Amino acid sequence: MTGSGNDSENTRRPKVVFLPDGVRGEARAGETLLGTARRLGADIDSACGGRGICGRCQVSVMEGTFAKEGITSSPDHLSPPTEAEQKYARIRGLAPGRRLSCQARVTGDVVIDVPVESRLHRQLVRKMDESLPIAVDPLIRAVAVEVAPPDLHEPSSDFARLALAVEEETGEDTLSADLPVLTGLQRGLRAGSWQVTAVLHQRHERDAPRLIDVRPGFDERLYGLAVDIGSTTIAAHLVDLHDGSVLASAGCMNPQIRFGEDLMSRVSWAMMNENGAQEMTTAVRAAINDLARTVCERARVRPEQILDSAFVGNPVMHHLFLGIDPRELGQAPFPLAVAEALELPARELDLAFAPAARAYILPCIAGHVGADAAAVILAEAPHEREDISLIVDVGTNAEIVLGNRERLLACSSPTGPALEGAQISCGQRAAPGAIERVRIDPETFRARYKVIGAEPWSDEPGFEEAVKTTGVTGICGSGIIEAIAEMYLAGIIDESGRFNAALAERTPFVKKRGRDLSYVLRPAGDGMREIAITQEDVRAVQLAKAALHAGCKLLMEAYGIETVDRIRLAGAFGAHIDPLYALILGMIPDCPLENVTAAGNAAGTGARMALCSREARDTVEALVKRIEKIETAVEPRFQEHFVAAMAFPHASDPYPNLRRHIRLPEPGSSRAQIPEKEHRRRRRQRQRQR
Amino acid sequence: MTGSGNDSENTRRPKVVFLPDGVRGEARAGETLLGTARRLGADIDSACGGRGICGRCQVSVMEGTFAKEGITSSPDHLSPPTEAEQKYARIRGLAPGRRLSCQARVTGDVVIDVPVESRLHRQLVRKMDESLPIAVDPLIRAVAVEVAPPDLHEPSSDFARLALAVEEETGEDTLSADLPVLTGLQRGLRAGSWQVTAVLHQRHERDAPRLIDVRPGFDERLYGLAVDIGSTTIAAHLVDLHDGSVLASAGCMNPQIRFGEDLMSRVSWAMMNENGAQEMTTAVRAAINDLARTVCERARVRPEQILDSAFVGNPVMHHLFLGIDPRELGQAPFPLAVAEALELPARELDLAFAPAARAYILPCIAGHVGADAAAVILAEAPHEREDISLIVDVGTNAEIVLGNRERLLACSSPTGPALEGAQISCGQRAAPGAIERVRIDPETFRARYKVIGAEPWSDEPGFEEAVKTTGVTGICGSGIIEAIAEMYLAGIIDESGRFNAALAERTPFVKKRGRDLSYVLRPAGDGMREIAITQEDVRAVQLAKAALHAGCKLLMEAYGIETVDRIRLAGAFGAHIDPLYALILGMIPDCPLENVTAAGNAAGTGARMALCSREARDTVEALVKRIEKIETAVEPRFQEHFVAAMAFPHASDPYPNLRRHIRLPEPGSSRAQIPEKEHRRRRRQRQRQR
Repeated sequence: MTGSGNDSENTRRPKVVFLPDGVRGEARAGETLLGTARRLGADIDSACGGRGICGRCQVSVMEGTFAKEGITSSPDHLSPPTEAEQKYARIRGLAPGRRLSCQARVTGDVVIDVPVESRLHRQLVRKMDESLPIAVDPLIRAVAVEVAPPDLHEPSSDFARLALAVEEETGEDTLSADLPVLTGLQRGLRAGSWQVTAVLHQRHERDAPRLIDVRPGFDERLYGLAVDIGSTTIAAHLVDLHDGSVLASAGCMNPQIRFGEDLMSRVSWAMMNENGAQEMTTAVRAAINDLARTVCERARVRPEQILDSAFVGNPVMHHLFLGIDPRELGQAPFPLAVAEALELPARELDLAFAPAARAYILPCIAGHVGADAAAVILAEAPHEREDISLIVDVGTNAEIVLGNRERLLACSSPTGPALEGAQISCGQRAAPGAIERVRIDPETFRARYKVIGAEPWSDEPGFEEAVKTTGVTGICGSGIIEAIAEMYLAGIIDESGRFNAALAERTPFVKKRGRDLSYVLRPAGDGMREIAITQEDVRAVQLAKAALHAGCKLLMEAYGIETVDRIRLAGAFGAHIDPLYALILGMIPDCPLENVTAAGNAAGTGARMALCSREARDTVEALVKRIEKIETAVEPRFQEHFVAAMAFPHASDPYPNLRRHIRLPEPGSSRAQIPEKEHRRRRRQRQRQR
Repeated sequence: MTGSGNDSENTRRPKVVFLPDGVRGEARAGETLLGTARRLGADIDSACGGRGICGRCQVSVMEGTFAKEGITSSPDHLSPPTEAEQKYARIRGLAPGRRLSCQARVTGDVVIDVPVESRLHRQLVRKMDESLPIAVDPLIRAVAVEVAPPDLHEPSSDFARLALAVEEETGEDTLSADLPVLTGLQRGLRAGSWQVTAVLHQRHERDAPRLIDVRPGFDERLYGLAVDIGSTTIAAHLVDLHDGSVLASAGCMNPQIRFGEDLMSRVSWAMMNENGAQEMTTAVRAAINDLARTVCERARVRPEQILDSAFVGNPVMHHLFLGIDPRELGQAPFPLAVAEALELPARELDLAFAPAARAYILPCIAGHVGADAAAVILAEAPHEREDISLIVDVGTNAEIVLGNRERLLACSSPTGPALEGAQISCGQRAAPGAIERVRIDPETFRARYKVIGAEPWSDEPGFEEAVKTTGVTGICGSGIIEAIAEMYLAGIIDESGRFNAALAERTPFVKKRGRDLSYVLRPAGDGMREIAITQEDVRAVQLAKAALHAGCKLLMEAYGIETVDRIRLAGAFGAHIDPLYALILGMIPDCPLENVTAAGNAAGTGARMALCSREARDTVEALVKRIEKIETAVEPRFQEHFVAAMAFPHASDPYPNLRRHIRLPEPGSSRAQIPEKEHRRRRRQRQRQR
């Protein structure tokens, strides 16, 4: 610890206080304000990896003498704006007094105000587990044995006598053991008075069994942990390895978000910082250990009782978890260092499970199609069906799988983060205060909306009261999709995505600033900013949805089909997006609406299957070899599909299934609307599904 | 770091300065002075594990104000003598002002004087390697391959493309790799522009090859480290794995000596201190890393280029190195936790070799017969001979092997540390200043002797000059054996080991103090103590040699033979003991003198063989299973042999081979002497052998 009171004046480091957190400490030489905040644990958002381009980390300096802190704070106590900061202010605008904390460095004492929109408040973690029953084909078994005590007349090692007892019980005559089991062997055998439970692990039946635990007495409890490492959230499920049931689940934010919100920001963090990749590896492993503690506490189990574990994640998450530098994944030809399934000691991944616990990493499919996609396929099992499934997992890159028992194809499409609410002017992650549902009245152009964390819609009584603590801070992925689809149906934008400029004259909700048009969902007020969709936001969503659609088309073309039988929307995005709006935007190809369904936490289920079943591991390892990988970046047809998919589906477009539910606008400018009875029908349907 | 200058007076910790080292620091609450010394790195000996019984850690407090240190030192600044310390002073005597540093605690500032005899000065490390050529059957091979670069059109992982290239080169189609290789893979492949050398490890031919290194370009250098972990010294040999040649060797003291000199002291340290075993594990692993750095520097190799390693040691050393608590080895039935050969990643033993380097631990034979004995058998290969070998490795426990191609028997015999110079009044380890050779004139009873580190004998010109820096500080193992054998031949003691009390009247070299008799090798003078052999010392050596002899007899009896064809004296002790004197004392059974030879560093050679050869590993693993283990502690005949072996061989004893060289004393009191021509003949023989 650095002493504080006794340091002489000339070596004294500037003091920094972050409000409203109240976190305080000293700035280090050369450290950005964001760096100080991260080190001290103050809550500041950042999405661009500290490059000064996302503007999420804005703060202001409070001025004056703070008796309680014993310091005098002044804006002059930060370094002057950097070139990046000046550029940001020029192009995107920076309110007076605001600074980008990733650019500013502390030169004297400061009290920093972190505005609500710059705070990385805990997000809803939506990756919970539905706990579907799964097939079990265990790799791990508990064998109760009675070991001969040591005997002067027949000297043999504790391990040799234990191995003999195991052989008598199982017929297995070649037992191996890792060092941590050997170092704990004496204690285990003696604590159980030579009656112990030996836990054996065998990845393949042909393998020599590996002794991974020795417990006193008879104790056949076997626990495992299935972990889905997402870019934004991590979910962990404590599993009873005897029957595959979930004993407890927990989720948390991926702490790597502090190093960059999207995958490419993290890759660039790794490229720009000497120990950047290592920092992110340490962070994600620590988060998994925290989650393990949480689920274990809930199930009244100790983390040291976890004997096996299975992990899925996209390629960047996969590499960072393993401690492999992800920078190669940031540039063509996007080669993975290792794609193959790995089976290794959990301790090599710094996981504080049982000393000899194992870890299984599901295989990746290709440079952008990760182990999470492999797990989705394992859980969804399109290869066991006759009909053709299209499985879409939307993230910064959408991972797309198409096929049936005949063929399986996969690709990833660079949708960017717009569909998740990032790079949208008022976009934010799905967190309390974010708009998640939107309806626009085609007559008045007034929007009604629903906010995460509040029950009533915006036009219902009690709404303002319900959002009093969170505020209405922005709009998340599903909200943006609905907003733009409703804007299209209401004629605010046409099928090419262009604003109807004439509306600026007719309604206060369409605003014109110079040549820029925007649609106001919620006006500014009460100190909160206006929430609006700009022309640029519409373009960003069009680019994203066109990329997703083009990826789907590419696979369908490769398979030689025009339509698919069913579409499964995987993951958190799939669980919260309304399939109808996904179709209205043309994100996915046309399909009978009732066959477009959420796949739930398929990646988590796949991880749990691999955790509990030797056969599931064999299956997923065989499947990834079989999958035909289509690389969108080198397919000339991708660009064509992409351009063609920029427009929204309209009356003369081949979306026959969609047109059975709503009247699509005519090309040009007329408007349409989803009939209220359609909304009612679908509400009932969703309630039934719950 | 704890601040020092700013601490207020009432929390200030006492300062301690150790002289002559000049090491200084602060004492911690509850810490013994020895503990402080160890923590700060000051040089104080200790042999009993801090129990206050060996007296090696004596120090005195200097009195007065030390301006340079800014402190006032006083003997009152140590805690009063403990019960153990008072008992030691009562029984063994403690000079005025002397304190046992393992008992005294620091209560105020002190300047401590560590007398020369309490210093753990670096000992001669005698385990050097003779570098005999050995057979090589490598487990590790370097394969130069050209790996396909990544291709957008054919996405596959770096590892998959490397595995394919290895398959093309070797035909091996199932490659596995440890995590540290996978994390370094990208860099290695790109640094070599896809031309790399893959290093494969296969313990058995049937195993899938394991990728343990990937280097840029063509680089087939393969290095390994063979390590012999002795209780007192550790020796390491850097080996070229292509031909088994030794590139560099180095030795060091086993730093565990600080926790107790003999094995049982270390076991008791582990029992009495919560993290005692762990401390010793950390110490020995750090020493091995240091040795690795030393040998690598000498051979201009980096430790990270070491790819494989092999380790031998007695059971306690074996367990401590592996991180297994050795306490079970301290009490009957002495069960080993694991005796089987182990093949594991070197990093699990905290060894800073190549990230995926391997470690092979040779198998132990039984609770007191370790992997060092197994290595000796591997190197000596008695199982390949028709004639019957007796192989003796003397330490605190002697490990004894008897046999030929028909049968192999092994036991360990509790000789105690007397033969190594411990628990002898003037005994010390083999270090400069120690008497190592002794001749006694049977007429004058005056001794001539040779001191380690000095060329001339004590009666030759220049002797006093040669020992000026070291002094003559004690007598080491080989010196004690020669001294007692010569005392016997000169009639100072009789065949039962009893002093001829009448001599006290005739010569100043035999002293009588009350009922205690002693023989003075070197009188006190120049501030150095008298060096003498007491009646108790003779008894201690008799007990030790009787135990060794009884162990040999027990094995011979079990085999059903009366004599052996050859005797091999292994290790440092075997290299420095004179076989003739070993026979005169009756340490070993009678044998033609020319067939009693030093085996040299057989344990180190065995380790090197196992390092370089798959076949050698198979051999030693098969051998230890074949060996018949005789447990001396439960053999009633051991006690009989032991009692019978207490006397020294005499004229009517069945030592026909020995009697061909010298005239043994008649039972009773007459004396004998080795003819000078016999000494000359043997000197010539030794010179020829060099």
